Amino acid sequence: MIDYEAHLSGAARRYQESAIRRIGALSASIPDLVSFAAGSPAVETFPWEALQEIVAGLLARRDGAALQYGATRGYRPLIEDVVHLLARRGVDAAPDQIVITTGSQQGLDFVGRIFIDPGAPALVELPTYSGAIAAFRNLEADLVGVRQDDEGLSIEGLTEAAQALARAGRPARFVYVTPNFQNPAGLLMSRARRRELLEAARRLDLLIVEDDPYGSLYFEDAAVEADTRPLKADDADGRVVYLGSMSKTLVPGFRVAWLVAPAPVAARVELAKQAADLCSGVFDQRVVHAALASGLVDRMAPGLRAHYQAKRTVMERALGETLAGQLSWRSPRGGFFLWVRLPEGVRDTDLLDRALAAKVSFVPGSAFFVDGGGHDRARLSFSNPTPERIVEGARRLAIALAGADVRQAPKAQSREPRA
Amino acid sequence: MIDYEAHLSGAARRYQESAIRRIGALSASIPDLVSFAAGSPAVETFPWEALQEIVAGLLARRDGAALQYGATRGYRPLIEDVVHLLARRGVDAAPDQIVITTGSQQGLDFVGRIFIDPGAPALVELPTYSGAIAAFRNLEADLVGVRQDDEGLSIEGLTEAAQALARAGRPARFVYVTPNFQNPAGLLMSRARRRELLEAARRLDLLIVEDDPYGSLYFEDAAVEADTRPLKADDADGRVVYLGSMSKTLVPGFRVAWLVAPAPVAARVELAKQAADLCSGVFDQRVVHAALASGLVDRMAPGLRAHYQAKRTVMERALGETLAGQLSWRSPRGGFFLWVRLPEGVRDTDLLDRALAAKVSFVPGSAFFVDGGGHDRARLSFSNPTPERIVEGARRLAIALAGADVRQAPKAQSREPRA
Repeated sequence: MIDYEAHLSGAARRYQESAIRRIGALSASIPDLVSFAAGSPAVETFPWEALQEIVAGLLARRDGAALQYGATRGYRPLIEDVVHLLARRGVDAAPDQIVITTGSQQGLDFVGRIFIDPGAPALVELPTYSGAIAAFRNLEADLVGVRQDDEGLSIEGLTEAAQALARAGRPARFVYVTPNFQNPAGLLMSRARRRELLEAARRLDLLIVEDDPYGSLYFEDAAVEADTRPLKADDADGRVVYLGSMSKTLVPGFRVAWLVAPAPVAARVELAKQAADLCSGVFDQRVVHAALASGLVDRMAPGLRAHYQAKRTVMERALGETLAGQLSWRSPRGGFFLWVRLPEGVRDTDLLDRALAAKVSFVPGSAFFVDGGGHDRARLSFSNPTPERIVEGARRLAIALAGADVRQAPKAQSREPRA
Repeated sequence: MIDYEAHLSGAARRYQESAIRRIGALSASIPDLVSFAAGSPAVETFPWEALQEIVAGLLARRDGAALQYGATRGYRPLIEDVVHLLARRGVDAAPDQIVITTGSQQGLDFVGRIFIDPGAPALVELPTYSGAIAAFRNLEADLVGVRQDDEGLSIEGLTEAAQALARAGRPARFVYVTPNFQNPAGLLMSRARRRELLEAARRLDLLIVEDDPYGSLYFEDAAVEADTRPLKADDADGRVVYLGSMSKTLVPGFRVAWLVAPAPVAARVELAKQAADLCSGVFDQRVVHAALASGLVDRMAPGLRAHYQAKRTVMERALGETLAGQLSWRSPRGGFFLWVRLPEGVRDTDLLDRALAAKVSFVPGSAFFVDGGGHDRARLSFSNPTPERIVEGARRLAIALAGADVRQAPKAQSREPRA
């Protein structure tokens, strides 16, 4: 018997499974489960007819290049679509600053490969996207968390953390942020905070990695487009690496996303991508190009905003009715997630066991914290289930909570307004 | 101005551009170029009608899962197709040993991430696939080359190299080989050599990474299917990590390939993939599943073998007629490449400059050597151009060679039979 462990790289020996993926695997064996775990878009929003037309048109043309190997940086007309898309959000990017990636997850992997030496620190939000934690930890990053307040990442916290690392002789190279409707906390960073963050990054000599999958999914009852202006739009000194994606605004299955970076950084990303997968799906990129160029993505956007806003409302009402004050949260102004505080004494992972028994799932808050915290939190995703299933899931969650082991603790002191 | 270099990881600072990709970029600016450089399949073999039917059928079903995020290991019915495909080639693999990858290039990246620590050695063939060199070097591998003879990798060479590394206290964990119609040398490893390699790997405690994109593209005038039996088929002790792909036997644009490894290794690859891109193209995987399940891939195979065999013959004849003995090569028994020895005194990179001026390209031999050698070689790919273009390319190559700076050297002593 071969000792495979002995053949593994140090990094591979230390790989950790993503909590979300693990829950996905667990959940697959539970029939009739209501999943509040997966951050997947709603399949009822998928534009079947338009895609049928696009795809049929592409294949009818019999252009061999549509099914051949493609350029590592991506399909040039798609890159130009991205230039226009970004321009409309205030970002002035040239084609040589853009690399098409296989989902933004690949962009995060490249960011890690380009900027992280094994053992080196990187700054992330508390909480932050679990897939970024996995990507950076697989590369042996030492992740240092920075607290957030109601307006987003704490500049004081960022400054303290960055200065402490610099003093210790191991400065962080970047801070990773999701200013728009953060996964998991749903936070929309304030405009003032965005300016302060750009200034702080300059002062601290940090690059900013800005992940923006949800930017166009603001809820029109609570936010306007201008609230979602990317940091990259005001990146006067070329300090921001920006990640955008089609996974939430068209469909995820084509795995089309993009990374925007100063040209010298984009050139390194291209080299990383050459060796990582040669190029992203070639046919997929043409489909997405057609979806952008034909206006399909623009036509879908208002409907998607309304769709997720309505589901948010359904979930907030259902939780409010069935859980009467046991859970608290800040009402999200966009995106896919309700980030709830659990009753005092209820631990996220314990509650998940009970929830799975009651046939409802969520992601434990601790999956999003790099400092061991978050056990008093849960991420409930309202994006994928239908309204009826959201209501049913809330009912099941109430059953799970009723059985939860609340250890003689005082009633939760909510620091946030109830929905 | 930000000093981006100072923010890069050590690995990223040392990234090297792949020679093939660089030539591709150079060539894009030359109108009417005949490319013998790209190892791309022939677009005239693409099965447009069948794909139109498959794709239309998939979208007509309106199954949301076809466009949603998918399982990291891949689409389960596709994994089962791969099980059957492998079984027919003598390989007994269970689904938990298979991970679908975004092209085999991603498989190579994962192999590197799983098995290579920065600075650690890995064994490769002299010459070997330049994309593997890039993937492993990006991960800071110290690549050690092992010579090949007419039957494939030299077992003596492998033993010497592995033992020297072990004696130096830094044993190699794997040897990377392409037994079937190697890129670039076109070599088909003999059946005896395959057995010897498996034995040597056991003796030397090496894993074997077997890359097999061309296995089913043997030329029926020179080889039979049994000649291409994968090492993995005789891997009694779970020592072989096998890479297969649809890029050469269907189309490359869907980026669908697979990695087969002992289950504990496959589980690590899954963790790497979770963080690297969540999952490969979901729609693409369903298209490829349909292409396999409907028998399309099987129906295409004899035609592909005949197509590339005919092109090989065209190239050999054209070179024989126009270059009358200046180039020598071993006639390939499958695959995409003619691996030619240049006239004595002609350097590969110098000839490439002249060739580009004459509007024909190839890949310099040195791109495939990890020891600085190969400047007396060139890889000529006959897979992509039409027969007419192959003839025209040979004519242009003769012009380039006529102008080449053959430095008063004696006539080439060919060690191989002329075509």
